[in-house]
Amino acid sequence: MTAPALRGVTLILGGARSGKSRFAEELVEATGFDRLYVATAAAYDEEMAVRIAEHKARRAGWRTVEAQRGLAAVLRTESGPERAILVDCLTLWLSNLLLAGVEPAGEVEGLLEALRAARGPVVLVSNEVGFGIVPDNALARAFRDHQGRLNQRVAALADRVTLVAAGLPLDLKLPKEPQ
Amino acid sequence: MTAPALRGVTLILGGARSGKSRFAEELVEATGFDRLYVATAAAYDEEMAVRIAEHKARRAGWRTVEAQRGLAAVLRTESGPERAILVDCLTLWLSNLLLAGVEPAGEVEGLLEALRAARGPVVLVSNEVGFGIVPDNALARAFRDHQGRLNQRVAALADRVTLVAAGLPLDLKLPKEPQ
Amino acid sequence: MTAPALRGVTLILGGARSGKSRFAEELVEATGFDRLYVATAAAYDEEMAVRIAEHKARRAGWRTVEAQRGLAAVLRTESGPERAILVDCLTLWLSNLLLAGVEPAGEVEGLLEALRAARGPVVLVSNEVGFGIVPDNALARAFRDHQGRLNQRVAALADRVTLVAAGLPLDLKLPKEPQ
Repeated sequence: MTAPALRGVTLILGGARSGKSRFAEELVEATGFDRLYVATAAAYDEEMAVRIAEHKARRAGWRTVEAQRGLAAVLRTESGPERAILVDCLTLWLSNLLLAGVEPAGEVEGLLEALRAARGPVVLVSNEVGFGIVPDNALARAFRDHQGRLNQRVAALADRVTLVAAGLPLDLKLPKEPQ
Repeated sequence: MTAPALRGVTLILGGARSGKSRFAEELVEATGFDRLYVATAAAYDEEMAVRIAEHKARRAGWRTVEAQRGLAAVLRTESGPERAILVDCLTLWLSNLLLAGVEPAGEVEGLLEALRAARGPVVLVSNEVGFGIVPDNALARAFRDHQGRLNQRVAALADRVTLVAAGLPLDLKLPKEPQ
Repeated sequence: MTAPALRGVTLILGGARSGKSRFAEELVEATGFDRLYVATAAAYDEEMAVRIAEHKARRAGWRTVEAQRGLAAVLRTESGPERAILVDCLTLWLSNLLLAGVEPAGEVEGLLEALRAARGPVVLVSNEVGFGIVPDNALARAFRDHQGRLNQRVAALADRVTLVAAGLPLDLKLPKEPQ
């Protein structure tokens, strides 16, 4: 069996409990490359701690680095050929920035720059959060706007964008044929 | 006109008022089989009573059984060749379980077992609820998690999975060619 | 470069900040037709005023008419060959009706009638709002129901229906080949 062509930047979008993380993990695992998991989750509460532990238990054979905020720096340092990086997920990263009072625009530009400069495949998981009714509170509306813009920016430079629902992939953008 | 090949298990996912129930009904009606509607709705309030009545008015020529919780038992009893079963919907079934204080894991396993053993086509309608902003209250978050996991489990064993938006189908998984 | 075949009625569905308006604008701009932007937004508050100004700044070379409610009349008056009309968006139009205490059923019939009678291409942008958890308040649930039904009605008569996520289109319905 030959390794599937995981190349460049891949964005995996999905809803909550859609199977998006597992799908992204399988993409990376199919490469046979060295696997790096970049965890953006911060265990603020027990609910999140349980979720982090569940995800971690699935990832034997992966190295994990935490990047609750400094995602661009991690990508610059760690990216390389024969190494596939999974960033899980952009939604928590964005949430960490906003909770810390950081205006995300500059951080987003830094991330995009690091993705353009990546020397090996990078898979990013992100939530699609805009398909519900307008949230009551302004903070949730602002988050939804930031998340939507971030997803658009990453999707525009990505080689592949896939929406996951009920564990099943729906490709929104596919890489050009390899040269 | 030959009957379309509705075979095995079909999962119809969709948002609120997406036309998912009507789409599922049309799949069953196109078979020419004996039609059984398994209603999971409980008329807790007037809003729901109105909705149930609307759905019912569309279904002349169907037999209806109510299964607010015991879905696996109904499928075991009723499933048969020349009979198409429509379960509408898994979201209300899950909601009924949680409102009754039942931990859904065991019930879900029972449902999956009954689906695997079905002797005729079964179409299940379910809501995709994970594409919005994280809900404020813990119960809604827990429901969203249970619903997402349930959809993934049913999708994994289903022969066909279709997402309905604005009344239009988008196939996520299609059955293998018939033997 | 030949103008793409933007014909009849096109419905662009998407979530918040999905890039749906921009995608719709690009469809119209690719025609080379006279461009009319029908703005349904009402600047109730500063948040909305900022958003309206951002959208407007993108649309050099467009004529704009406001139609916070009387959408059918605008379409009847303005539609013509060599003119492409963009209605942005049905969600705010529906919201304006409900806030004004107007039962939308009659207005929706009027809109559908005007779309059937249109003498040139019309692109309508609308939100998909039903993929989240059931909203707590009855008004939001009612809005979600109205929006879902409206999207289904417009989709049923549209020649093309496209869902936009992260700026990327996913076609749900495509026009038949031109005669």
